[in-house]
Amino acid sequence: MLALRYENGGVRLAEVARAERAGEALVRVRRAGVCNTDVEIVRGYAGFEGTLGHEFVGVVESAPEEHAALVGRRVVGEINAGCGRCELCLGGDTRHCPARTVLGIVGRDGAFAEYLSLPATNLLSVPDEVSDVRAVFTEPLAAACGVLERVEIREGMRVCVIGDGKLGLLCAQAVKALTNADVLLVGRHESKLRIAARRDIETTTLEKLSTAARRSFDVTIEASGSPGGFATALELLRPRGTLVLKSTFHGATEINAAPVVVDEIQIVGSRCGRFAPALELLRREAVDVESLVAEDYPLSEGVRALARAQAPGVLKVLLSMSER
Amino acid sequence: MLALRYENGGVRLAEVARAERAGEALVRVRRAGVCNTDVEIVRGYAGFEGTLGHEFVGVVESAPEEHAALVGRRVVGEINAGCGRCELCLGGDTRHCPARTVLGIVGRDGAFAEYLSLPATNLLSVPDEVSDVRAVFTEPLAAACGVLERVEIREGMRVCVIGDGKLGLLCAQAVKALTNADVLLVGRHESKLRIAARRDIETTTLEKLSTAARRSFDVTIEASGSPGGFATALELLRPRGTLVLKSTFHGATEINAAPVVVDEIQIVGSRCGRFAPALELLRREAVDVESLVAEDYPLSEGVRALARAQAPGVLKVLLSMSER
Repeated sequence: MLALRYENGGVRLAEVARAERAGEALVRVRRAGVCNTDVEIVRGYAGFEGTLGHEFVGVVESAPEEHAALVGRRVVGEINAGCGRCELCLGGDTRHCPARTVLGIVGRDGAFAEYLSLPATNLLSVPDEVSDVRAVFTEPLAAACGVLERVEIREGMRVCVIGDGKLGLLCAQAVKALTNADVLLVGRHESKLRIAARRDIETTTLEKLSTAARRSFDVTIEASGSPGGFATALELLRPRGTLVLKSTFHGATEINAAPVVVDEIQIVGSRCGRFAPALELLRREAVDVESLVAEDYPLSEGVRALARAQAPGVLKVLLSMSER
Repeated sequence: MLALRYENGGVRLAEVARAERAGEALVRVRRAGVCNTDVEIVRGYAGFEGTLGHEFVGVVESAPEEHAALVGRRVVGEINAGCGRCELCLGGDTRHCPARTVLGIVGRDGAFAEYLSLPATNLLSVPDEVSDVRAVFTEPLAAACGVLERVEIREGMRVCVIGDGKLGLLCAQAVKALTNADVLLVGRHESKLRIAARRDIETTTLEKLSTAARRSFDVTIEASGSPGGFATALELLRPRGTLVLKSTFHGATEINAAPVVVDEIQIVGSRCGRFAPALELLRREAVDVESLVAEDYPLSEGVRALARAQAPGVLKVLLSMSER
C-alpha cells in the first residue's frame, strides 16, 4: 500500500506492506488530516519514525471475530493503544499507559496510508449525518473537548482562548458549545476570527485587547503554541484562575514563578480527549469545522501537502485516499 | 516604639510612632519570626518599604468596642487585610482582594516592632497550651496547610516535598499530619531531614533518590525555592499528577511545556493558608516546630538577626520584644 512516511530525517511516499497487526482491526483510510504534531515530527522534534498521521476516517476492512460487527462500518479511532494490563488501562483510560503506542506518533504506523491498524476497541462508528470531511476533525475536536476533562467550566464563566489556529478555533467552539461560557478568542487573523465570531464567540486581536482585560478571566487556554501566548494567558488570569496549556511548544519557555504562587494560579496540561463528545458535537453541527479546511490533496501528493501544512497561517490540510 | 524597617535599600532599627490604624486592633508583639519573604524584601525583590515581619504572637492592647473581648488576649493574626467591600472579601476570603494590604509585605507596617495594627477580625486567640515560640509558627504552618486548600491529598497517596528548609519541613509535617499520605522529603542536610524522620516522614537526598522514583508521585511540593527543585518536582510526578509551587523564586525559570501537556500535569500555586487548622495542629503537638528554631535575638539586635536569617542553611530566626 501507499504510505507517507518520516524516515532518516525526511518525508517520502513509499510502497509498504499493509499495516496489519495481530488481534487488531484493519481500517481502509478514506480521509486524513494534518496536525501540528505531524509538522513537529517532520521537524524532528518527536523522535518518531514511520507512517505519519493520526486524524482519519475510514472503513473497517477486517476485525477480530468478537468485533465482526464493525466490518464495513465507517469509523474514527482513538489514537492511544494501551498495554491492556496496567492499572490505567484496566481503569478504561489508555491515554497515559506508560507502554502505550500512539497512532502515527509513538511506536505505531499512522493514518497517512491506504490502511491502518488499531485495536477494535479504539474505533467508534461515525453517524451517517457526519460527512467524511467533518469526521476527520473528531480527533482534534476531542482534544479541544478534553479541556473540560481537566477543568470545570460553567455557564457565564469568563474564558479566553489564545491563538486563532486550528486548535484555538476548535477549543473556543468546543468550550462555547459545551458550557455556554463567555468565550473570547484572541488571534491575529481577521478571516480566522470571523469563523469563531459566527458561532457567538467574542474575538479580538492582541493589540486591541484592553488593559482592563488583564487579571479578569477565570480560565485561559493557551493554544497558540508560542511562549508569548503563554505569557499573555498568565497575564489575563484572575487570582486563583486556571491556565490550560493545550499546545506543546518546544525548547524551554521562561516562566516567572512568583505570580503563579502569589496569585495562586493553576496551570493544567491537556492533551487527548474522549471521542464520544466530539462526535456528538459534529452530529449536532454545533461546531463549524468545514471553514477550517484550507486545502485537500490526494495521498500521492502527500509530500506537498505536508509542506503546505507548514506554511504560516494555513489551517487544516486534508489528504484523500482513493481506492485502487 | 522600636521597629526594624526596610527603607531606601537598607535595613535599620528606628524609633517610630506606634503603629495605630483607625478601626483596628493594636497588638503588643511578644515574639516574631523571620521568613524568606523578609529576606526577599531586604534584597529588594518585593517593592515594600516599611516595618518588616508578618509572623508573630502578641497580646491585644486595644480594640474597637465590638471586639473589646479581645483586649488582653494572646493572639496570632492572619496577614491579609482586604478592602471589606469586594466580592472576594464579602465571600470571607481577603487573601486575593485586589486592594489588600499585607502585614509587613504590602502597604502595611509589620511585626518586627513593639506594636502592630491589624483588623480585629484577623486575630485568633492562641490556646494556653501553645507556647509563644510555637505560636510564632502559626503563619508559616498555615501556609503549609494551605497546600490542602489547593489540592486534594488522601491517605496512601504518594507525596514528595522538595526542600528541607523551614517551608519544606512544615509542608511535609502538615501534609503527613492532616492526611496520613506517604510523604517523602527530599533535602540536602541530614540534620534537617532527621526532624522530619522523627515524624514518620521518609527522607532522602537528591543523590540517593532512585531512578525508580521518577514519574511515580501523585503530588510533588516545590519548597526549595530553586529552579532545580522545580525541575525535580516535575520529573518525579506521575502522568496527571499535581505539582504544588509553594516557594517563590525570582527571575525567570525555564520550563519545558511539552511534558506538562503530554503527561497532563497540573501546576498549582499556593501562598497563604487559613490559621485555624494550623493552630489546631500546634495545640495537638502534631508537628515539631521547636526543632526548627535556629537562633533567637532581641528586637534591638534585629539587623543582625536578619543578616543571620540570610546565611545558607539557617532555619528559623526569632525576634523577642521586651516590654519597656
